[in-house]
Amino acid sequence: MQLGFVGLGRMGLNMVRRMQQAGIDCVVFDTNLDARKEAASYGATAAQSIQDLADKLEGPRAVWLMLPTAVVDAVLDQLVPLLSAGDTVIDGGNSHYVEDLRRAGELSKHQIMYVDVGVSGGVWGRERGYCQMIGGPEEAYKRLEPAFAALAPGFEAAPRTEGRSGEPSPAEKGYLYCGPSGAGHFVKMVHNGIEYGLMAAYAEGLNVLKSANAGKQKRTADAETSPLEHPERYQYDFPVGDVVELWRRGSVVGSWLLDLTAIELGRDPSLKDYTGRVSDSGEGRWTAQAAIDEGVPVPVLTAALFGRFTSQGNELYANKVMSAMRHAFGGHHEIKTDNKD
Amino acid sequence: MQLGFVGLGRMGLNMVRRMQQAGIDCVVFDTNLDARKEAASYGATAAQSIQDLADKLEGPRAVWLMLPTAVVDAVLDQLVPLLSAGDTVIDGGNSHYVEDLRRAGELSKHQIMYVDVGVSGGVWGRERGYCQMIGGPEEAYKRLEPAFAALAPGFEAAPRTEGRSGEPSPAEKGYLYCGPSGAGHFVKMVHNGIEYGLMAAYAEGLNVLKSANAGKQKRTADAETSPLEHPERYQYDFPVGDVVELWRRGSVVGSWLLDLTAIELGRDPSLKDYTGRVSDSGEGRWTAQAAIDEGVPVPVLTAALFGRFTSQGNELYANKVMSAMRHAFGGHHEIKTDNKD
Amino acid sequence: MQLGFVGLGRMGLNMVRRMQQAGIDCVVFDTNLDARKEAASYGATAAQSIQDLADKLEGPRAVWLMLPTAVVDAVLDQLVPLLSAGDTVIDGGNSHYVEDLRRAGELSKHQIMYVDVGVSGGVWGRERGYCQMIGGPEEAYKRLEPAFAALAPGFEAAPRTEGRSGEPSPAEKGYLYCGPSGAGHFVKMVHNGIEYGLMAAYAEGLNVLKSANAGKQKRTADAETSPLEHPERYQYDFPVGDVVELWRRGSVVGSWLLDLTAIELGRDPSLKDYTGRVSDSGEGRWTAQAAIDEGVPVPVLTAALFGRFTSQGNELYANKVMSAMRHAFGGHHEIKTDNKD
Amino acid sequence: MQLGFVGLGRMGLNMVRRMQQAGIDCVVFDTNLDARKEAASYGATAAQSIQDLADKLEGPRAVWLMLPTAVVDAVLDQLVPLLSAGDTVIDGGNSHYVEDLRRAGELSKHQIMYVDVGVSGGVWGRERGYCQMIGGPEEAYKRLEPAFAALAPGFEAAPRTEGRSGEPSPAEKGYLYCGPSGAGHFVKMVHNGIEYGLMAAYAEGLNVLKSANAGKQKRTADAETSPLEHPERYQYDFPVGDVVELWRRGSVVGSWLLDLTAIELGRDPSLKDYTGRVSDSGEGRWTAQAAIDEGVPVPVLTAALFGRFTSQGNELYANKVMSAMRHAFGGHHEIKTDNKD
Repeated sequence: MQLGFVGLGRMGLNMVRRMQQAGIDCVVFDTNLDARKEAASYGATAAQSIQDLADKLEGPRAVWLMLPTAVVDAVLDQLVPLLSAGDTVIDGGNSHYVEDLRRAGELSKHQIMYVDVGVSGGVWGRERGYCQMIGGPEEAYKRLEPAFAALAPGFEAAPRTEGRSGEPSPAEKGYLYCGPSGAGHFVKMVHNGIEYGLMAAYAEGLNVLKSANAGKQKRTADAETSPLEHPERYQYDFPVGDVVELWRRGSVVGSWLLDLTAIELGRDPSLKDYTGRVSDSGEGRWTAQAAIDEGVPVPVLTAALFGRFTSQGNELYANKVMSAMRHAFGGHHEIKTDNKD
Repeated sequence: MQLGFVGLGRMGLNMVRRMQQAGIDCVVFDTNLDARKEAASYGATAAQSIQDLADKLEGPRAVWLMLPTAVVDAVLDQLVPLLSAGDTVIDGGNSHYVEDLRRAGELSKHQIMYVDVGVSGGVWGRERGYCQMIGGPEEAYKRLEPAFAALAPGFEAAPRTEGRSGEPSPAEKGYLYCGPSGAGHFVKMVHNGIEYGLMAAYAEGLNVLKSANAGKQKRTADAETSPLEHPERYQYDFPVGDVVELWRRGSVVGSWLLDLTAIELGRDPSLKDYTGRVSDSGEGRWTAQAAIDEGVPVPVLTAALFGRFTSQGNELYANKVMSAMRHAFGGHHEIKTDNKD
Repeated sequence: MQLGFVGLGRMGLNMVRRMQQAGIDCVVFDTNLDARKEAASYGATAAQSIQDLADKLEGPRAVWLMLPTAVVDAVLDQLVPLLSAGDTVIDGGNSHYVEDLRRAGELSKHQIMYVDVGVSGGVWGRERGYCQMIGGPEEAYKRLEPAFAALAPGFEAAPRTEGRSGEPSPAEKGYLYCGPSGAGHFVKMVHNGIEYGLMAAYAEGLNVLKSANAGKQKRTADAETSPLEHPERYQYDFPVGDVVELWRRGSVVGSWLLDLTAIELGRDPSLKDYTGRVSDSGEGRWTAQAAIDEGVPVPVLTAALFGRFTSQGNELYANKVMSAMRHAFGGHHEIKTDNKD
Repeated sequence: MQLGFVGLGRMGLNMVRRMQQAGIDCVVFDTNLDARKEAASYGATAAQSIQDLADKLEGPRAVWLMLPTAVVDAVLDQLVPLLSAGDTVIDGGNSHYVEDLRRAGELSKHQIMYVDVGVSGGVWGRERGYCQMIGGPEEAYKRLEPAFAALAPGFEAAPRTEGRSGEPSPAEKGYLYCGPSGAGHFVKMVHNGIEYGLMAAYAEGLNVLKSANAGKQKRTADAETSPLEHPERYQYDFPVGDVVELWRRGSVVGSWLLDLTAIELGRDPSLKDYTGRVSDSGEGRWTAQAAIDEGVPVPVLTAALFGRFTSQGNELYANKVMSAMRHAFGGHHEIKTDNKD
């Protein structure tokens, strides 16, 4: 099987490597020459340009894009005129599924099939394989199944779920056809929405543990500071890193995210090298917006999302408004922010 | 009627003034000599000490405390031995109602009645009167009713509610006997919990208005930054101060808090003199904790409370944990925080 | 001044009445004949059809639509072909501002101006006047200002904000030009988003008061029921209706919504005629979605929104998932729901 | 090693079995005769009463309680008088750590040591082992370590965390000394608080997937129903069970809870046998309350907690208040609740 592949970032390179190892011939392109060279070192064929890539592929072509969402359309503008009826484009990035609906419609005018694939796995995917959520024409999915299977973690990656038997299904190997155009990125979007919620749940809990020595702190006795009625209840200095390590075995909260947290906290439980600014890359927002369209309550997922917005400083004006109100009704003046570390 | 009064801060002085004007003789004490002098200028009798205050009052005595919660017990330790059976102590500060239950029990051993009064009104109370939520023995409430009536805004302070008729009830004058010990501070606690929610609702909405020019900002097109799909929808520069002024007339969101916000935003819509650190003084916390004990969901009130905690910097470790997780699974590095103003 | 007016529902009729009283000649239409008759009884001219309405208006025409959002486009399809260059259409309903942007673009091709007006006031507007948030071409706003002024509550509707002086601004009379197309409905959208938050803040707080007798309830001592450690702290039977009445005078939480709540609770504090299903009509959703686009945290506003979704039953599947998880890891069986009243 | 064990419920029996297999002699008691017989079948010695259990143990005794929180104190009242200085009591149930502080203080008067152990593992613990979080006198912890090790999952239960080396620490075997009295239950409390958050994150996300066919539903076009602007975006019928199975391999959201969810959804993706009433057993509440005492924001954890309260019906009065407000300002009548399934 032959596959075009555009976008050789961190993740793209690892994916090409995994496919080459599984015997899939990748014809690759990226504007970064070093990345092209690295892909070539895995056995891939490096193209000099999008045009060159299209030329090097035999029809019906399949071209997998692994690009930042913001540049997908620009690359499609270049690529589509070089393709022919019956070809397929795969968007494996983190596009909004609404964009998929639009693009699938546009490409179908040229009889080009558009497949959207949500890919989870991060930098660990090279080793663990990539979990793939797939949407688009079922015909295209079928044709591309060897590539999905090559990228996927495989059946052995997890113990079989009680109650399942027979030939493993694609889901049990780590890839799934989720439905028509947009379905793959919709499921990936929700996946990331959930991820935000999981991360925040752990993070909040660990913060409660870390602050369990609150009773040892000095507190001013003025009307602007909430009193701590029972300082004797908050005298603990918990070994947060060890607690996370502990929870990896036998507890209800075990997870891959927890495994990773154990690595990070094992290195430095104070996490002093981080400033606490948490980026968000779109899917959490879209999940919340889709939920709202559907009328489905997602208080946990949005709380996690808003925590990120706040870490980016975007709550500032709201807080100023509240300080102004407090000043107006109570003559309260702001207290200088304490140093936190 | 004669009343002892301890605690001549901002609010205490205004309350004494209002009572003196209504013909209630206050015998006052505060460690601050200037405050005592000011109270005397309103016609109150200034005592030299707690002992002196107790001496100057005829039995059965009633002593109103208007103190920061953190010092109430210390003052009671001094005061109670100077009182006699049949006397009454009123705590008009922001004590936790659980403290009231304890104190009422302790004072009842000395046959001293303990009355808890939640007082709302802030610095405007001198002019508008004070809304009072009262708990404790009904006998004490009855005896003190002239003082409550003197402090209250009075029947004229609001148009009569449709459906009410006859002699105005105490609630319609601005004070209410809410029930046994703790009832006054319980109601005041919830009052403040609601206040946090109202403030945050306005503040969040105004922040959405202020940020409605997001489409004019430049945005980087990397995988760490969520794209804005429709910049053309966020091109507004709203006159936030005028909007708030507008809403004061005829809209569903009109309120006294909005009136105050109009004053502040009228002065400076950018609120540049505020840093956005929002203190909390206990009641919002206690409301949430009581709701949790009751099993009552209060997502709005806690969201408001947590916004304050976050404005105080207490979310930091949680955010570092999330940054660490993102680093661990995706190799993501933190973006330097943008300057916000 | 002459004005076309389509949509004589509850609110439309009251608005026509108010304008007629101010000397604005309304030519009105609604498919409901009775409504047309009622409008005629206020002095308006009833048209037999959209065509008739267009015919009866002198150019340049101005037609105000007061319709459910879902039917605005259908009416525009009928109306626009009957209008001429220089005419104006006003959408006074609760359209999404994004629709305004689209419609303004479409109508501008015909040189018809499109004005979006967010109107607050509900059924009380007839008496109190309507608070109006206006977007669109400033030229159209200027021409229509007499109508806005007639509908608005007027300067006397609220005490002047401290610090304001001179000739009252439009905002101080109850209408405001907020900016280009969509600006009016954007501000109204946020207004309603805030309204949801305010309502939920009060509602949650009153629920905490109502449940303050939790310590009197019997509780089973099994592993599925959370124990109440201090039943003695929850022995209060608060007069919730009186508390709300009380807060109307002198307290920080006074508002028009609270005034209305006092009416309702004065009638029946148990609210037994309500089932607790709370509709939402779009603006709360759009506010949250706009905030998310802007990257602005709105935890309080979304908590309020999600409370409504949940009251509509849309959380059900999520709860089943959690019950299933609890069954899977702990063998927990669901407890039969208690009867609540 | 010999150990007394009181409380042979689901979990207690499995724990005794695991300890017997590891060569720890358990002397057990429960009021349920069948449970005693079952424990005896694992090799444990069944006592006829608490007295008998105390008699059968050689000093210094250690007695492990595995009881519903609500009955621990009653059993301690019976047990403590039968113990001697130097004995140890272990509370392995889900007590509030604040109770531990009190009990440890009381028992220390009798020179009895009190150890609090948070135990995670549920019905799977028999097979997987139990994750144990331990608080109390370090001396007692040391003496009991063989029991903790027998119950724990052991080092092999998870791949070693990158960066760890040398002799496995207790945390790496599945038990951890967390600090002085209360430390074990504090950490377990937060563990469960996190668990609530994780569960809700998954549940909300799956609900968004399940409702992704919203565009296929009929919608009424009235002012009480929020319109769905883009029904074409919500036309998906996702195979939710397969999606969960998929995510078990290679995705960022993999976890033990997800594994269990896959079992349940594999059985019946509609979950029709569940009603959606989600119990809470205390720890989620205490986590939130501790966080509030500490001033630490936990919006995700409380959103999860409040979702449970709402599933129990406790939001009802709040919703009625909002319906009443909507009626009062807009004349809105409640819509009859749709049937959901």
